[in-house]
Amino acid sequence: MTDTTTTAGTVDVTGHEAAEILASARTHVDPELRRAIDSLPGSMRRIALYHFGWEHADGTPAARHPGKAVRPALVLTAVRALGGEPATAVRAAAAVELVHNFTLLHDDVMDRDITRRHRPTAWRVFGDADAILAGDALQALAQRLLAEDPHPGAPAAAARLAACVVELCAGQHADCALERRGPDEVTLDECLAMAEAKTGALLGCACALGGLYAGAGSEEVDALDGFGREAGLAFQLIDDVIGIWGDPGRTGKPAGADLAARKKSLPVVAALASGTPAGAELAELYARPAARTGGEGEDAARAAGAVERAGGRDWAQAHAADRMSRAVGQLARAVPDPESAGGLLALAEFVTRRTH
Amino acid sequence: MTDTTTTAGTVDVTGHEAAEILASARTHVDPELRRAIDSLPGSMRRIALYHFGWEHADGTPAARHPGKAVRPALVLTAVRALGGEPATAVRAAAAVELVHNFTLLHDDVMDRDITRRHRPTAWRVFGDADAILAGDALQALAQRLLAEDPHPGAPAAAARLAACVVELCAGQHADCALERRGPDEVTLDECLAMAEAKTGALLGCACALGGLYAGAGSEEVDALDGFGREAGLAFQLIDDVIGIWGDPGRTGKPAGADLAARKKSLPVVAALASGTPAGAELAELYARPAARTGGEGEDAARAAGAVERAGGRDWAQAHAADRMSRAVGQLARAVPDPESAGGLLALAEFVTRRTH
Repeated sequence: MTDTTTTAGTVDVTGHEAAEILASARTHVDPELRRAIDSLPGSMRRIALYHFGWEHADGTPAARHPGKAVRPALVLTAVRALGGEPATAVRAAAAVELVHNFTLLHDDVMDRDITRRHRPTAWRVFGDADAILAGDALQALAQRLLAEDPHPGAPAAAARLAACVVELCAGQHADCALERRGPDEVTLDECLAMAEAKTGALLGCACALGGLYAGAGSEEVDALDGFGREAGLAFQLIDDVIGIWGDPGRTGKPAGADLAARKKSLPVVAALASGTPAGAELAELYARPAARTGGEGEDAARAAGAVERAGGRDWAQAHAADRMSRAVGQLARAVPDPESAGGLLALAEFVTRRTH
Repeated sequence: MTDTTTTAGTVDVTGHEAAEILASARTHVDPELRRAIDSLPGSMRRIALYHFGWEHADGTPAARHPGKAVRPALVLTAVRALGGEPATAVRAAAAVELVHNFTLLHDDVMDRDITRRHRPTAWRVFGDADAILAGDALQALAQRLLAEDPHPGAPAAAARLAACVVELCAGQHADCALERRGPDEVTLDECLAMAEAKTGALLGCACALGGLYAGAGSEEVDALDGFGREAGLAFQLIDDVIGIWGDPGRTGKPAGADLAARKKSLPVVAALASGTPAGAELAELYARPAARTGGEGEDAARAAGAVERAGGRDWAQAHAADRMSRAVGQLARAVPDPESAGGLLALAEFVTRRTH
């Protein structure tokens, strides 16, 4: 593909196309999302508007930090790829985004994460109970959107989204359970299965919902799900790499926070399993208590160096490429015409190539 | 009605009829519920089976303590009252019970309640994160049952159940917010509104879903909702009375625990608002820190005496009767034929007359 130069650097046409798809999805889905959230009772609405970035903690309007809207974009782009009309699937796209945000609200409570989209997490502002309740309400809102949607694909989409939520819960459970175990008691296969349930499942579901709204057959829908899952795993691998080596000013999270907190992200577990001296060094570092108050930076830098020298970074990037190639294979099953598949491919490549 | 004497004492025919309806509902809904829970991934299934009483904490089978199954019974009985076939609404009945249990799992985490159905609450056995996740999964499972149900009433039922969940969340938020405020900063109207959202809404929704599955019109469905809401408030008032003066061996909760924890239940708030010397005594008692380690019994007994002398118990019982009469009025709008309405009436009278 032809490279085009922008002020932000060199991006290819695919990146351009993805950015346009994402912006267009935001434009179409944001009003539906906002309308749904505005229908909540005041107490729940306030927390949701803060979490989504539409309001400050004190209830004054905020310039919403535009999230990437990857999941809604996947829904709408999958509809188009299967020959459907994306405008008919805006509710489904909003429903997927609501489910994503319900899981973020709950995961932040469980993981005690303190920052989300450059701001304090909802539980820090409103307390655990309100963050849990707002998450519960967003899950219900997602299902309400689909239940009230007269589109013939809506009931199957609702069932699929509900099944996906169950998988997301099992994935988060596995994540918490893995975090409680020692660094030498966790296998890479377990971590990959956890990442598929926790991240891949909803990206797959987003694509599958697009297929259902386009009236696709079950084979196409399942292949779309497979495409999203594989791309989702590639995305998670790159996200983990960025979580260690990314620019905190762009990620919105403190540098090396996951390493300092001894999180077992995929590059870390690959490094631990590498059988290298650097892997052993990392295991020794991870066996110590999580670094606190002052020492995090140096501690995280040492851990990052060990992960890199143990091959964790290279493995994650290579495995992300492998997952992307599996994703492309699934996509070809669902959408044989390369031109029709272009949008989904551009999105998958965009999220797995991003540098922030 | 003719009184009949049983070994348990004197019960009327209505009580008999209600007990039979509840037992029948359990018989029909339990297999559907169990099948739904068995479809969960292992990690979530284990927590759900413990919470529902099918398994002990170690995963061995338990003799399930048969819950009252009031909500499923309301669904099935409402279907019958409107001339429908209850067997067609078993999934809807199971969905309502799943939603009820999702809220119990989450409320117990937020309220730090330690006992549920005579056993340690799920968060005490599995931790907060797992109890939250299992609740999330049960909400999803409820919606999945309805989304996969080919019954023509299912989409409207799914939308109504989702809207109800949002109301339940707002009700639990209001409950938590009321508990944080001082005893003199809470009005009885606020507490009644909270109880309607937290308890009335789901009982109303159960009845409304029965109407939808019977193909009833929107006026009948709304009147059924109103019936369930009013009966639900009567139920909550009686439940609060039992929470103070009931037999711990039958309630499954420690005696006076809510009073010792300074909970603002409806009889308590009525007593606080009574303008009586006993109300002032209660306010003074409630202004002190919650009683702990040893002094709970005496402290709770003093508080219970003050609530009673301030008229909180009499008010709660009279207001429950008032709500029951409003419920009967709503029921007559939905089901004019007294014979058809008999089952719902028997259920409402049963839950508001129970002594344990």
